[in-house]
Amino acid sequence: MSHPERDTRQIIVDTAERFFRDIGYQKTTVADIAKSLRMSPANVYRFFDSKKSINEAVLERYKREQEEAIIAIAEQDRPAADRLREILIASFRLNAARFAGHARMQEMVCAAMEESWDAIIAHIERFDAVLRRVLADGVASGEFRAIEPAHATGCIRTAMIRFMHPLLISQCECIPGPSAEEMIAFILRGLEAQPQGA
Amino acid sequence: MSHPERDTRQIIVDTAERFFRDIGYQKTTVADIAKSLRMSPANVYRFFDSKKSINEAVLERYKREQEEAIIAIAEQDRPAADRLREILIASFRLNAARFAGHARMQEMVCAAMEESWDAIIAHIERFDAVLRRVLADGVASGEFRAIEPAHATGCIRTAMIRFMHPLLISQCECIPGPSAEEMIAFILRGLEAQPQGA
Repeated sequence: MSHPERDTRQIIVDTAERFFRDIGYQKTTVADIAKSLRMSPANVYRFFDSKKSINEAVLERYKREQEEAIIAIAEQDRPAADRLREILIASFRLNAARFAGHARMQEMVCAAMEESWDAIIAHIERFDAVLRRVLADGVASGEFRAIEPAHATGCIRTAMIRFMHPLLISQCECIPGPSAEEMIAFILRGLEAQPQGA
Repeated sequence: MSHPERDTRQIIVDTAERFFRDIGYQKTTVADIAKSLRMSPANVYRFFDSKKSINEAVLERYKREQEEAIIAIAEQDRPAADRLREILIASFRLNAARFAGHARMQEMVCAAMEESWDAIIAHIERFDAVLRRVLADGVASGEFRAIEPAHATGCIRTAMIRFMHPLLISQCECIPGPSAEEMIAFILRGLEAQPQGA
């Protein structure tokens, strides 16, 4: 059974995403999106009440993909350190695939930071919830030192921002520093309950 | 003995800084700076061959102030952990004082990232040299675990970028997460040679 309304919605989102990537969020208009779909702007507005709402739908998909990926990793029956490493690397790779080399993509994220703050905070809270759970597992199993999971979650997310933030993923490519893998290894080493030589 | 040439140079830099902060780097012209000093643009060009050169002089002063501050801390006769903490907090406070609440200030930094990359890299290398030395001291004294100082320097600088980068200092104020002091404590805890309970 097909869902024409849902399909149309999805096609609008796909088209908008391509415009945002290629010519940027600021320069894209709802009329551009409608025209390339041979729709009237009024028809697009039946599905989304503003460019802001379309942007939210594009980012919603990104966030959902990342959240599903990291929840699947968190639920695996493996050491917490391995799950934490994979969650961080998967998040970096998803963001890098979207934003590295696409300078215009940060416009849509910057716009969302100004217009759709609640949605961004909600995503950060869901990301944190997954990390917190894995950190708590690692403390309970004795893999990690006695950190407070909620506090360590905020610190680890902050330490990784260079590998998550759309602007920094592009801008920091030319700055000398660790790879994402090296950064994650450094963080994990600082969490270990029994460092070498202790 | 006065240095009229040097004084004029300094007055141009001070004026440019005010323009960059108040109306932004993009909208400021050399003619604006000259006019507010009752100078001809040609006279300003005697001292700086472009707006880019004036921007470099503004940032040069910021960088020099930060470098002098952290070198003075690095040379103190105190435990490496204390010096590392103070270097990071002093760097954060200097950057926060300049950039927090002055959204337009990031324009000049973004411009420098596009136009004056070598100057930025040179600053990062001097910052790293100071950090590396303190980390090596801490490993030698047994305060820190057996990290490789150059590698740990890159990781610590990257972990702290949310508190150093002009854009993030403003943008992240509304994102839940650790304070600069809490972040530094988390990093230091991960460097300790003898964690609690080991």
